[in-house]
Amino acid sequence: MGWLHDEAGLEKNAANFVSLTPLSHLNRAAALFPDKIAIIDGLRRFSYADYHARASRLASALEQAGVASGDVVATLLPNILAQAEAHWGVPATGAVLNTINTRLDVGTVAYILDHGGAKVVLADSAFLGLTEAAVAQIEGPAPLIVEVADPASGVPASGRHPEYESFIANGDRAYPWHMPEDEWESLALNYTSGTTGRPKGVVYSHRGAYLHTLGLSLDWGLTRETVYLTIVPLFHCNNWIHTWSIPALGGTVVCCRDITAKAIYDAIADEGVTHFGGAPIVLNMIVNAKAEQRRTFDHVVNVYTAGAPPPAAILAGIEPLGFSVTQTYGLTETYGHVVECRWKDEWAELPDAERYAMKARTGVAQVIEERVTVIDPETMQEVPADGDTVGEVMMRGNVVMKGYLKNPDATAEAFRGGYFHSGDIAFKHPDGYIKITDRAKDVIISGGENVSSVEVESALMHHPAVSLCAVVAKSDEKWGEVPCAFVELKEGASASAEELIAFARERLAGFKTPKMIVFEDLPKTSTGKIQKFELRKRVRAL
Amino acid sequence: MGWLHDEAGLEKNAANFVSLTPLSHLNRAAALFPDKIAIIDGLRRFSYADYHARASRLASALEQAGVASGDVVATLLPNILAQAEAHWGVPATGAVLNTINTRLDVGTVAYILDHGGAKVVLADSAFLGLTEAAVAQIEGPAPLIVEVADPASGVPASGRHPEYESFIANGDRAYPWHMPEDEWESLALNYTSGTTGRPKGVVYSHRGAYLHTLGLSLDWGLTRETVYLTIVPLFHCNNWIHTWSIPALGGTVVCCRDITAKAIYDAIADEGVTHFGGAPIVLNMIVNAKAEQRRTFDHVVNVYTAGAPPPAAILAGIEPLGFSVTQTYGLTETYGHVVECRWKDEWAELPDAERYAMKARTGVAQVIEERVTVIDPETMQEVPADGDTVGEVMMRGNVVMKGYLKNPDATAEAFRGGYFHSGDIAFKHPDGYIKITDRAKDVIISGGENVSSVEVESALMHHPAVSLCAVVAKSDEKWGEVPCAFVELKEGASASAEELIAFARERLAGFKTPKMIVFEDLPKTSTGKIQKFELRKRVRAL
Repeated sequence: MGWLHDEAGLEKNAANFVSLTPLSHLNRAAALFPDKIAIIDGLRRFSYADYHARASRLASALEQAGVASGDVVATLLPNILAQAEAHWGVPATGAVLNTINTRLDVGTVAYILDHGGAKVVLADSAFLGLTEAAVAQIEGPAPLIVEVADPASGVPASGRHPEYESFIANGDRAYPWHMPEDEWESLALNYTSGTTGRPKGVVYSHRGAYLHTLGLSLDWGLTRETVYLTIVPLFHCNNWIHTWSIPALGGTVVCCRDITAKAIYDAIADEGVTHFGGAPIVLNMIVNAKAEQRRTFDHVVNVYTAGAPPPAAILAGIEPLGFSVTQTYGLTETYGHVVECRWKDEWAELPDAERYAMKARTGVAQVIEERVTVIDPETMQEVPADGDTVGEVMMRGNVVMKGYLKNPDATAEAFRGGYFHSGDIAFKHPDGYIKITDRAKDVIISGGENVSSVEVESALMHHPAVSLCAVVAKSDEKWGEVPCAFVELKEGASASAEELIAFARERLAGFKTPKMIVFEDLPKTSTGKIQKFELRKRVRAL
Repeated sequence: MGWLHDEAGLEKNAANFVSLTPLSHLNRAAALFPDKIAIIDGLRRFSYADYHARASRLASALEQAGVASGDVVATLLPNILAQAEAHWGVPATGAVLNTINTRLDVGTVAYILDHGGAKVVLADSAFLGLTEAAVAQIEGPAPLIVEVADPASGVPASGRHPEYESFIANGDRAYPWHMPEDEWESLALNYTSGTTGRPKGVVYSHRGAYLHTLGLSLDWGLTRETVYLTIVPLFHCNNWIHTWSIPALGGTVVCCRDITAKAIYDAIADEGVTHFGGAPIVLNMIVNAKAEQRRTFDHVVNVYTAGAPPPAAILAGIEPLGFSVTQTYGLTETYGHVVECRWKDEWAELPDAERYAMKARTGVAQVIEERVTVIDPETMQEVPADGDTVGEVMMRGNVVMKGYLKNPDATAEAFRGGYFHSGDIAFKHPDGYIKITDRAKDVIISGGENVSSVEVESALMHHPAVSLCAVVAKSDEKWGEVPCAFVELKEGASASAEELIAFARERLAGFKTPKMIVFEDLPKTSTGKIQKFELRKRVRAL
């Protein structure tokens, strides 16, 4: 260990040690470039001074509403101004931000509000019904609902709850931010669907998020000229931490409430968007946009995509339009992406088909993650980089969650052997690039959202006519994948596909509902276990 | 504080917490892009795999030579391969790197070796005389001298000591690096001349250096295409941390043994250098290069300069040649620069003279430093940003030294009130940009080296004919500043300027020796204190 033989007087003190937190970025931006445009939401444009002041007002108003350090504040919001402001204003009170997926069903939202113990929930008027229904279901004390209206987008206030703009107007713009005393303090809580049972609450630290803002800014080449469009929902790993990153260098965030081809092209052409992240479905949307939705622009737009390798056809279609696509990989547990298909100069020489194949590799660790590798989970030994031997993707470093809230067993299991176990199966190319081949966890990724097969199966099993069912991913041109259910009916019972789909929809969010039902006997092992690999083969032939 | 009400199972563990250290960058680079060229030294070019292997061999050889964790390994080297390798190989053993300024006199080098307690010193053949003489003077146990020959540069081995290449050849290329268990462990020890008495040993932590590598890479826009030329000596704040930064993204370092206009132009034209740092004297050298020393190139070279504002004439001369110059500011105590004159888009519209005036501002805090401001040292209150009121530049954040080795009193004094006291005097422009106007510490900056007036005065006072003397900076076209001594001789005594200069040269490094002696009665206050401000006025008229 590198301690000098005499370290007297060399301890940490107020001058030489500051707890790492992304909050520092906005404080600095407001002090050093107050007039620079920080964020654009439709026709509203705010400077760093204004953005900071609004976040301070939010923090102050939350404190007045009883929010204290260590409390949880939830949001049910699209990618609008208030959602970005919550990323600063909530932790500025010492509270923890819990952005909830607006696509979830009432029961799951209620579970999350209850489990996280939110004191306040900021809810968009469009999701107020969902929010109110969820709040009505929860067992613990009900959170205060603050309604975020967006009249400019045709979403007026209901009048049933305090409205966001009035709420923060009561706050103090000079509110002194609570900066973490210990950088391991909690910053955010993000629920992940997981594969079985209830969603798990992934906890982020101030340290992890701060380090990731620096690392991903380097990986992605962010500068003071960066104009970042929020396509990845802020409820997905806090849109991969990007919103916390942009103020470090003084770039600009452009909010995007509705993710449409027109909105994306307009933001690029009108606001000069240079960077965004999005699932393959977004790339699809861009390539297949109608002529009247398209705009021309003369700069390169850098796109991080994740969830599935970008297909060659998409790359061939999108590159000539001015987009440079890089595949990334990560999980909620790793604050979003920590792997990227890092470009190699020699690939530039390859014919398109080979170049696209290279871009479909999963990639290597980004700057900030200490180690991302492929390990045999039985032996905990790394697999050889032979382009063939598969193992589980595992990582360790400062951009790995603190753990799952109130679930020490699941946390210990996820960290077994000193690595985070991703559940994804991959091999390593001889040059060390990882290629994911399968998901060990039984997850379907539909439109960028993770769907647990088990959750869909459980919903269908409640139907009185269903004897047995198994849900697998079916590839889909628009959504990437959709859930497809194979069903065995009970002897003498009957049910139509439409009936089962409608039944599931009552119990599940839309994106989790199976799009196809196949009635047939399920293939089983001798011990009666359903052979999902066999169903995956069959689904390909459908 | 942002602790959730239930944090059970959310503790740090091997998977989610890794001590920050720049060593991670080279480990990752060697694993992920082993074939990329990491470093070029003359005709020798090494890939990241080779660079890592050589650093590992050095670490292994040092350990075999008895170096253990917490020991100090010193260097007396120009900016050659071995000096860069020492930045990895020394800390990889758990030891602390002490790069010593090769321009110092024997007595000071002996003091540093003794005070730091170096176990080994890596010495260039050109500085072997200095090293041997210093080692002969020290009181404690003599360090092992490992001689670094550079025959390609006309510096062959003396044969009197183990030679570097043979020394590391005995090391193991698979040596397992000691990574810090605690990121507060010490990484480097850099002696600063200070203003009075002996140099002080500034101690850097792994954490501070790591964070600075990320921050400065963002500030300076470093990418995988960066080709960095080592002009700033690696014994100056480990060349402002740059050598530890480049492997983060996989750029290339180009070593520069002799800093000449020809060497700089050749490196730009032949190796595609994109970035370097240098004192104003280097900018001078580039602008005033002879026709046969110049080369043409078609890319922009980004230059960080520090030590003095870049003069308008230099900016006017150097910009058309393809160099983009940014002024930075920092001290050994802040790991090099932590302030830069951050460019504002609106400056592009200004006439040249005004634009150059903007570029002569000292600037604002870089990404990583929590706070840099101007404070009244009496009241510890910030001065108003009125473009007029002066105070002392002070900073706090993670890029501030741990303290001074074996000098808790000086450390406590430097950190009084929770800020590091720079000793430099500045005001703040209304937009928050700092402008340094004077140095509170009596320092002359000559050719990028700090010279303590007090040290020069002490040397001259030993001359039997000198009654009183005071040394101030005289501006100099080549060196920026040079020491100028005002001398009162003793009654009846006599001495020539040449004699006093020669006398001083025996006791001082060349760059500290006064270039001019003025014999006259010194202006004094009523209490007999020499009025240096009066001498500074007089020297301007010389």
